[in-house]
Amino acid sequence: MKELKVGLLGIGTVGGGTYAVLTRNQSDIARRLGGNIRIVQVADRNLALATQVTGGQVPVTDDAFAVVNNPEVDVVVELIGGYTIAKELVLKAIANGKHVVTANKALLAVHGNEIFKAAAEKGVVVAYEAAVAGGIPIIKALREGLSANKIEWVAGIINGTTNFILTEMREKGLAFADVLGEAQRLGYAEADPTFDVEGIDAAHKLTIMASIAFGMPMQFDKAYTEGITKLTSKDIKYAEELGYRVKLLGITKKTEAGVELRVHPTLIPEKRLIANVNGAMNAVVVKGDAVGPTLYYGAGAGAEPTASAVVADLVDIARAHGTQAEQRVAYLGVQLDQQQTLPVLPVSEVASAYYLRMRVLDKPGVLAEVTRILGDATISIDAMMQKEPQDGESEADIVILTHVTIEKNMDAAIAAIEVLSAIDGKVTKIRMEELGK
Amino acid sequence: MKELKVGLLGIGTVGGGTYAVLTRNQSDIARRLGGNIRIVQVADRNLALATQVTGGQVPVTDDAFAVVNNPEVDVVVELIGGYTIAKELVLKAIANGKHVVTANKALLAVHGNEIFKAAAEKGVVVAYEAAVAGGIPIIKALREGLSANKIEWVAGIINGTTNFILTEMREKGLAFADVLGEAQRLGYAEADPTFDVEGIDAAHKLTIMASIAFGMPMQFDKAYTEGITKLTSKDIKYAEELGYRVKLLGITKKTEAGVELRVHPTLIPEKRLIANVNGAMNAVVVKGDAVGPTLYYGAGAGAEPTASAVVADLVDIARAHGTQAEQRVAYLGVQLDQQQTLPVLPVSEVASAYYLRMRVLDKPGVLAEVTRILGDATISIDAMMQKEPQDGESEADIVILTHVTIEKNMDAAIAAIEVLSAIDGKVTKIRMEELGK
Repeated sequence: MKELKVGLLGIGTVGGGTYAVLTRNQSDIARRLGGNIRIVQVADRNLALATQVTGGQVPVTDDAFAVVNNPEVDVVVELIGGYTIAKELVLKAIANGKHVVTANKALLAVHGNEIFKAAAEKGVVVAYEAAVAGGIPIIKALREGLSANKIEWVAGIINGTTNFILTEMREKGLAFADVLGEAQRLGYAEADPTFDVEGIDAAHKLTIMASIAFGMPMQFDKAYTEGITKLTSKDIKYAEELGYRVKLLGITKKTEAGVELRVHPTLIPEKRLIANVNGAMNAVVVKGDAVGPTLYYGAGAGAEPTASAVVADLVDIARAHGTQAEQRVAYLGVQLDQQQTLPVLPVSEVASAYYLRMRVLDKPGVLAEVTRILGDATISIDAMMQKEPQDGESEADIVILTHVTIEKNMDAAIAAIEVLSAIDGKVTKIRMEELGK
Repeated sequence: MKELKVGLLGIGTVGGGTYAVLTRNQSDIARRLGGNIRIVQVADRNLALATQVTGGQVPVTDDAFAVVNNPEVDVVVELIGGYTIAKELVLKAIANGKHVVTANKALLAVHGNEIFKAAAEKGVVVAYEAAVAGGIPIIKALREGLSANKIEWVAGIINGTTNFILTEMREKGLAFADVLGEAQRLGYAEADPTFDVEGIDAAHKLTIMASIAFGMPMQFDKAYTEGITKLTSKDIKYAEELGYRVKLLGITKKTEAGVELRVHPTLIPEKRLIANVNGAMNAVVVKGDAVGPTLYYGAGAGAEPTASAVVADLVDIARAHGTQAEQRVAYLGVQLDQQQTLPVLPVSEVASAYYLRMRVLDKPGVLAEVTRILGDATISIDAMMQKEPQDGESEADIVILTHVTIEKNMDAAIAAIEVLSAIDGKVTKIRMEELGK
């Protein structure tokens, strides 16, 4: 096997990890591959950093296009992030006939259809294991390991920042804002945490997994995204009393009516393995018709876990280099010309069970009115819990778990409940998933 | 892509599942592969069953060698099991230039070195995802998904029968023998359960994973195997009171001194995800130096979960068909000519923490004597629990959790404890693993 020559774009956290892993485990990788993978050029705006990380062993440049246009380079590893320059570099690398490895979930979720089409025309590989759930080989499981299955649904904790925050809120009873500050100090959350806490990062990753699971193009603009900023530790505590944990899940499910594609806080029965995934760790459950539910767990971010996925892609590319397209795994699991543009359901059409919490005046008949409204909407109640008013308060919390109904039906019932005179303020609604069969 | 033509040996549980999955999901698989996989011949001693399952759609025979020698067949799927005939059929298929898919963990653990050598000489693929942990794509994760890593250890619940029995013993407080009977009635345990309950089946699977993880030949004969037949529900209860669950684990670890390769009941902290894998489900934790701990969970047996793995192997083979050896994943992760015969440590040299339980006469000074013996052996105590004697009894249980020590050191201390006059009978010893960093 010829040596695979790698051009590395970006030598920050993941780029540095990739350099470290490839260097440290070079002989192990060669024993597996029967060949070598070598970084032949590194580009970073911070030339001093690039020189320091590589110890002067590799030519460095501050011009990423010099790497993309370097005739010696077989594969370009894009670890710059963002949409604009990264897209230009990836498309130029493809146009130059080079394979691409990227950890850029945002780029693929938004521009993936264009990128994979270009790659198919040039006959090069675009690999992206690191883009979803860091070091967990979930893309390989979806594209290859479960290839015998009709995938029914995928549900994942695919953002470590929010899982860290939710874990701290539950364990310490703290408010979201307080934990966010702590997470920022510890480096688990960015200075601007919007992408993470509003569920956008998770929606990018979910978009990619949905495309593979159901053989459809990327439809990121159709994803429903709801973050964790409005979650209270009170709701987390009540959920726990009822036997549930609250997680920010990315969920995609194929139904008769269309594909569900949604990110939101979700109650999960505590007996489910994924309900017990804590801290910054990630986990994805995939339900196939033959295999049943399977789960994949590991570090979803960090220098070396992400590098583990980048380097695994390089090993795969070293083998695929020189093969024909039909001997390679399809970019998105299904052959591009076999993709079907399945309709994505608006969230109002999604079927779910619900956790509802409302503040009610402590007087007779309130519960009867609430249950009558739910009954009229044919929404069945699975469990109910009324908390005593706290000292000096005249209002109590009522928590209701419902059976499955269509979201617009639930929302209409909630609107009717909120106008009751005995109800104070808005009803808190959190979706629930069994994640069983 | 040319159609891949499959000859199926054995159409019992897994064979029937394979036929059903390939038939039901034919178009989904074709969309992924860009080609077809078709069963062209089925062999089973029970011709009536073969005809019934295939509905007369496929030629059937009771002569497995007719399939292996059929010039039309590209790949032979061996689902017969056992060592003798299965080995002969697999080697003959290889000699005839056919690829092989097998779910036969016993065959590979015992004769794998010979089989892979023969396959390499003929340039055919031998795939075996179904041989370890059923539908969980753990072989793919180990060989490909984690290829960037030095694997440090692997620990798995890789036998569903014993995990079902241990779960029932814990949840219902029942004795091993009672639960075994129930498991046999439910079809979770064989009439002769020896292979499962004595840990032999788990040792077969562990042997295969250890070979991949550490790039060494199969060394099944060196595996230490201890089953669950002597476990009591009392020890499971005491472990739980101390924050641990008892699981039958297959553990392989690379140390300076050699490779640990061992199957035995193990205490695991209940906060670990794998400690919460219940019923007949399987899970494997793999610790890589770059990725950290990762976990893979799913059904470890059953018709369609196992078929999911068999068919995924067929999809991989359809792509690999016609490629050169260097473009394929190495049989056991590492190129055969790069394997190293690492020494397997005898269990007496393995380092572990321990759970010890002893029956003591309820009189002063006993504990002092026991702790003196442990102290003299430089074995540190991590936790201790003394249970009150039950009504009418003069003996109490003492439970001790130790820090890590070498097994022969532990055994010498136990021997010294057992001769104390205040100790009644044998000391129960169960190994403990943190499975953390």
